[in-house]
Amino acid sequence: MSFSASVLTLYPEMFPGALGMSLAGRALETGIWSLETVQIRDFATDRHRTVDDTPAGGGAGMVMRADVLARAIDRTSPPSDPRPRLLMSPRGRPLKQERVRELAAGPGAVILCGRFEGVDQRLIEARQLEEVSIGDYILSGGEPAALVLLDAVVRLLPGVMGNELSGEEESFEGGLLEHPHYTRPQEFEGRPIPEVLTSGNHARIAAWRRAQAERLTRDRRPDLLHDE
Amino acid sequence: MSFSASVLTLYPEMFPGALGMSLAGRALETGIWSLETVQIRDFATDRHRTVDDTPAGGGAGMVMRADVLARAIDRTSPPSDPRPRLLMSPRGRPLKQERVRELAAGPGAVILCGRFEGVDQRLIEARQLEEVSIGDYILSGGEPAALVLLDAVVRLLPGVMGNELSGEEESFEGGLLEHPHYTRPQEFEGRPIPEVLTSGNHARIAAWRRAQAERLTRDRRPDLLHDE
Repeated sequence: MSFSASVLTLYPEMFPGALGMSLAGRALETGIWSLETVQIRDFATDRHRTVDDTPAGGGAGMVMRADVLARAIDRTSPPSDPRPRLLMSPRGRPLKQERVRELAAGPGAVILCGRFEGVDQRLIEARQLEEVSIGDYILSGGEPAALVLLDAVVRLLPGVMGNELSGEEESFEGGLLEHPHYTRPQEFEGRPIPEVLTSGNHARIAAWRRAQAERLTRDRRPDLLHDE
Repeated sequence: MSFSASVLTLYPEMFPGALGMSLAGRALETGIWSLETVQIRDFATDRHRTVDDTPAGGGAGMVMRADVLARAIDRTSPPSDPRPRLLMSPRGRPLKQERVRELAAGPGAVILCGRFEGVDQRLIEARQLEEVSIGDYILSGGEPAALVLLDAVVRLLPGVMGNELSGEEESFEGGLLEHPHYTRPQEFEGRPIPEVLTSGNHARIAAWRRAQAERLTRDRRPDLLHDE
């Protein structure tokens, strides 16, 4: 059974985008995963196809209407649909590789891309949307975030990466940033490859890499160490 | 002077992608920003156009060569180029809205998209690349991350959002997640809009929103409070 993604958006033309190329694109063609886009505007009921309205209580921007979004979700993902329903939102729980893995092991995802100020809170509660944030910055909408989430998930699906799936991920999941990499040429602008890496001593190489990863993580991301 | 982005990648066809549509796309057409893609493979010197090699010291995956990347960077961004040189990498400093703002206020960015296991460390040091991570998850490559970074930056450029630039960002930069939003209809599936928001009492509304934002942040992102 392949991984099934449904993306609810005002910009279906943004998909598959980069996901239609390279490894993810080939996996899409061969049916390892599928991608459906749903135009939210098709579920508006007035002749202007309105999907948003001014915020209750005043303030800047517009809010996406609960009733329009509920119709779009219910048509795309009836209550029997086992897929999680995600809302890409800077208010959400920060996406981590662990959640990416869980999603990749599941049947797929229904992804709602917010735009404007956000979506009506009652829709989030009534449809039990899982709010997901890809980082502490503001995007033009949920679409670039959905592309990132799907890219991270699709590369983990069986058959997508093949032998290209590397140790990077395990390293990252081990709670440390990855050690530095080197490859040929042996010397670059007067800088040699660290001697240990060409020593052929596998135990020394492993110890050096581990020490480098720990140093990098301590310097750049002490928060990762505290999480453990 | 418009914001000038140069993206070095093995997949130039992934750009502009979603950045060619909606607000960012119109801003690209009207010259508020410009986007150049550089095919890294064009700077290989063998007839197979090789850009990577096996990791020194052994291990899975491939590493992008320092010499090939240096030629691509130097041709795209000579030493006199005032633009910061970024490397999208999960080892980088986490992207925050503050850095997005700084980039948007500057002349542009040269963005190197890593693939495979990563890039030779000597290139990062010799060209003083700023490693930027968009989040704690692994992507197929730096391209989706570059799209996200540029989306966040472009929406801040003068003339892009117009009146659509909202209070969301200030709220987020204030160190709190945003309060919940509501809009018409007045009742949705038996759920009314909170009474305070329709009271017309602006002081009460502001206090309620502030309390909601604080509660949300405490519940979901206590780390944001500790950062202050």
